[in-house]
Amino acid sequence: MKATVLIRPKEGILDPQGEAVGDALRTLGFAVSGARVGRLVDVQVDTDDPAEARAALDRMSHELLANPLIESFTIEVGEDA
Amino acid sequence: MKATVLIRPKEGILDPQGEAVGDALRTLGFAVSGARVGRLVDVQVDTDDPAEARAALDRMSHELLANPLIESFTIEVGEDA
Repeated sequence: MKATVLIRPKEGILDPQGEAVGDALRTLGFAVSGARVGRLVDVQVDTDDPAEARAALDRMSHELLANPLIESFTIEVGEDA
Repeated sequence: MKATVLIRPKEGILDPQGEAVGDALRTLGFAVSGARVGRLVDVQVDTDDPAEARAALDRMSHELLANPLIESFTIEVGEDA
């Protein structure tokens, strides 16, 4: 089944890419007061058990996908997206 | 209000980063058959109208945040994340 990890810079962690995006959006005329850039990973896990998939994604995030020191992550299981 | 754009490589578009992540996960012993890497942008929009925020994010995505030729995007408005 498919699962997704959404990874974001933690609150208080500097995000130069997000600042650049915010500046660019304002330059284009959009009324935004801030932007933060993160990433997402869609993983096709070889299981049909949502709980098992979530537990596996949690381990993958800690071991490889995210840096828990500076990033927070949320896991979505069985999303269509 | 806060809104988020989730940006993913389109189906059929080569995603070397995702392939590398999938290989690394399998090397670590995880049972995965594929991975795709995208990005997300959280934007603090200066409006309280969800429809207006969504329309603004859609324009931002076309103009700056995504490359519609090779990427698909979905917009989530008023997420807590």
